[in-house]
Amino acid sequence: MVVANSVFAPIEKDLLSLNQNLQNMIGARHPVLYAAAEHLFTAGGKRLRPAIVLLCAQTLAKSSGISAPQRRLAEITEIIHTASLVHDDVLDECSTRRGIKTVHNVFTTKIAILAGDFLFAQSSWYLANLENLQVVKVISKVITDFAEGEVRQGFTRFDLQFSIEEYIGKSFYKTGSLIAASCQGAVMLNFADKNIANGFYMYGRYIGLAFQIIDDILDVVASSNDLGKPAGSDLSQGNLTAPVLFSIPEDYQITQLINKEFSDIRDIDNALQIIRQGCGIQQAKDLAAEYLQAAIDCLEVIDNSKSTESLKKLTLYILERVN
Amino acid sequence: MVVANSVFAPIEKDLLSLNQNLQNMIGARHPVLYAAAEHLFTAGGKRLRPAIVLLCAQTLAKSSGISAPQRRLAEITEIIHTASLVHDDVLDECSTRRGIKTVHNVFTTKIAILAGDFLFAQSSWYLANLENLQVVKVISKVITDFAEGEVRQGFTRFDLQFSIEEYIGKSFYKTGSLIAASCQGAVMLNFADKNIANGFYMYGRYIGLAFQIIDDILDVVASSNDLGKPAGSDLSQGNLTAPVLFSIPEDYQITQLINKEFSDIRDIDNALQIIRQGCGIQQAKDLAAEYLQAAIDCLEVIDNSKSTESLKKLTLYILERVN
Repeated sequence: MVVANSVFAPIEKDLLSLNQNLQNMIGARHPVLYAAAEHLFTAGGKRLRPAIVLLCAQTLAKSSGISAPQRRLAEITEIIHTASLVHDDVLDECSTRRGIKTVHNVFTTKIAILAGDFLFAQSSWYLANLENLQVVKVISKVITDFAEGEVRQGFTRFDLQFSIEEYIGKSFYKTGSLIAASCQGAVMLNFADKNIANGFYMYGRYIGLAFQIIDDILDVVASSNDLGKPAGSDLSQGNLTAPVLFSIPEDYQITQLINKEFSDIRDIDNALQIIRQGCGIQQAKDLAAEYLQAAIDCLEVIDNSKSTESLKKLTLYILERVN
Repeated sequence: MVVANSVFAPIEKDLLSLNQNLQNMIGARHPVLYAAAEHLFTAGGKRLRPAIVLLCAQTLAKSSGISAPQRRLAEITEIIHTASLVHDDVLDECSTRRGIKTVHNVFTTKIAILAGDFLFAQSSWYLANLENLQVVKVISKVITDFAEGEVRQGFTRFDLQFSIEEYIGKSFYKTGSLIAASCQGAVMLNFADKNIANGFYMYGRYIGLAFQIIDDILDVVASSNDLGKPAGSDLSQGNLTAPVLFSIPEDYQITQLINKEFSDIRDIDNALQIIRQGCGIQQAKDLAAEYLQAAIDCLEVIDNSKSTESLKKLTLYILERVN
């Protein structure tokens, strides 16, 4: 991960203090919620969303560097993301995530619902305390989008009519919206003008879509060990993602396996093998690469005197995850 | 319900348009979420929280009457309340509410989690669009308090060490906090000064606590038909409320029944009968009456030229529910 090291190097210290702050912020009044939150935050995770906030903030920063509200926004994005993961894991009945057991598995479904509610609530509270109404509005919309994305996903499982366009729409709600709003919010806190703030929103939107496609490719190509959850777990639940959708027209066996909802024990492995041998994965990579190029193009709104190097490198990092 | 009619008469039209707006506001992009929300909002409910917002707003209103942001705040409080009910019903495994089946019962637990998340998210979005940071902060805190209250309740079921003070603490988080913040938010939108806004917060806090005590009395004295859910359903889940806590020292049988967690089919009816015959219910009523008097005392901060009649009548309405 050569690119990863160099892209995150300028904000390495910021990410370390973010990790400490996350636990202090949650410092819930109740030990069980604290334990659930600690369980989540110490499990690692890529911290991609806060890293993007910090990189966007740094790109437009004056000599004083990244501001306190921008650091707080980075923390808020990770809290919102984590809250959505806890509820997602309940909804998707996942038992492991990031290599450890999920909250509803270690504790109970009730604790997981509450912990998610609590984290969403904490994020709203910290958000309001940023004292910037425009940022509050932009980020508030994200949580509505999550629910929309989750519903769309829930009602299209094993649906062979599900199109790549619908997949992109759902991915925007589930992933793109938060990253887009985080990028926009970060530079709004730099007092960026509307045109620039919108450019950052679109940059984040494309980054988010590419990131989701790459994540979905990893679900079908990576090992359970690397994923920290069973390989093909999205597919086994009927979430038809880009590499799967591109593979369906290639081999009718995939359609048959989806139709029978992978009811035999070897069905998932068979499907994964067919997908890995076809061109669907490459098509999905090409689509992600297109979105990453579109993200880079969005950076043109930025004044030439600002270095956009780190934001461009970020696109390489995202693609590198599958190379 | 003589008092009820007269206390809500001045805002009758406002409450009617609120009911229509609630459905339009939720008008979700997805038919299943819409169905879940419609299921909730058409079931009736007392609309107590929006009514209190409207009455507080009216008390300090200038000649132009209740403002558009105040009406929106009334709607937001009902959406937040409804969101908390949907998740509560999942957590408490309730199958009926307001005389109809609960969302997770009609649809699924997944839909109920999502519908709750969606409603919380919608409320945050509408809240941000009130464009008043102080109100956003005050209301954001409420959602954190809900999770706190629900956790406290979850971990003290059947706990005979649970004290009346802890019960009041939990009731504040579950009920008092939203009503207090709604009253305060309503008059903040009238540009009330800090002293008056705090007075309204305390008024709402006491009203909320009294309302919860009365609700808890109804759980042990009212019929299943009147409640719209099984009589004694809180008690059967081990939620030890004011009338129960006051009854425990009176008859050792109650302790025994709680200790065995009402495991026999007739245990709940036996416990209800003992409680109904003792003085615990009256003691709980007295406590509620004290809180209602404290609420009235909070109104002293208001300029004498303003009529506080409707806010005083509201306290009578709350007590009337058990008389």
